[in-house]
Amino acid sequence: MLTRIDHVGIACRDLAAKIDFYTSAFGLAVVSVEVNESQGVREAMLEVSGSPAGSSYVQLLEPLGPDTPVGRFLARRGEGVHHVGYGVTDIQAALAAIGAAGVRLIDERPRHGSMGASIAFLHPADVGGVLTELVQSGAAGR
Amino acid sequence: MLTRIDHVGIACRDLAAKIDFYTSAFGLAVVSVEVNESQGVREAMLEVSGSPAGSSYVQLLEPLGPDTPVGRFLARRGEGVHHVGYGVTDIQAALAAIGAAGVRLIDERPRHGSMGASIAFLHPADVGGVLTELVQSGAAGR
Repeated sequence: MLTRIDHVGIACRDLAAKIDFYTSAFGLAVVSVEVNESQGVREAMLEVSGSPAGSSYVQLLEPLGPDTPVGRFLARRGEGVHHVGYGVTDIQAALAAIGAAGVRLIDERPRHGSMGASIAFLHPADVGGVLTELVQSGAAGR
Repeated sequence: MLTRIDHVGIACRDLAAKIDFYTSAFGLAVVSVEVNESQGVREAMLEVSGSPAGSSYVQLLEPLGPDTPVGRFLARRGEGVHHVGYGVTDIQAALAAIGAAGVRLIDERPRHGSMGASIAFLHPADVGGVLTELVQSGAAGR
């Protein structure tokens, strides 16, 4: 069902500084920077590896304000891994199967993610404390 | 320098239960279960995707006791993402370059990881709160 680790989502306070760090210390390349108002984040996608089945990314997340999911995460936990995203080929089918397995879905229906992808989050309490995201690549081929 | 997301390391209290969950809810396959006494963990590797450049895994970590790094993590943070591991082709060269970029190395020299890999950890305080591991696959081709 899962096709790859699509990304690791990392909460940070200063996106520009973290982009500088990941590009200079680890040699990653930034492939997208965008604002997602509905999720309350400014985010950057840094490609770790590419393949015909889809790429894997470090996703850096800076909150647009303190009263956002990532803003509250930073206040509670500090900087660090916020969530893990896995690739799927059919997000509707994956949500149906995972929901049937007893995992609560934060998103019953997919919504807009970065780089044109369709995404949905699963409840961390049902995934061993890990906020888990499903990602179906968009036409842009993320 | 980084060739892929090798794995996401997830701390859990009950390895057998979490293996059951990840295999049944997400369809992942267990490829290795082993005890690493020096790291104080019983761990399972579940393959998410494979490629000639190396596979990506969910790594489930159950502490061998409370006075271990993962045991202390669970007491402090609860279950969840413990670290992120990235593939490298030459771990000695990667450690030298990353150390020269100002990141403190928890392991100055690589040590034994699961499935015959050579691994080394970087200090989370220098990687934005993310305990970060480098992984050079062993002869077994992890």
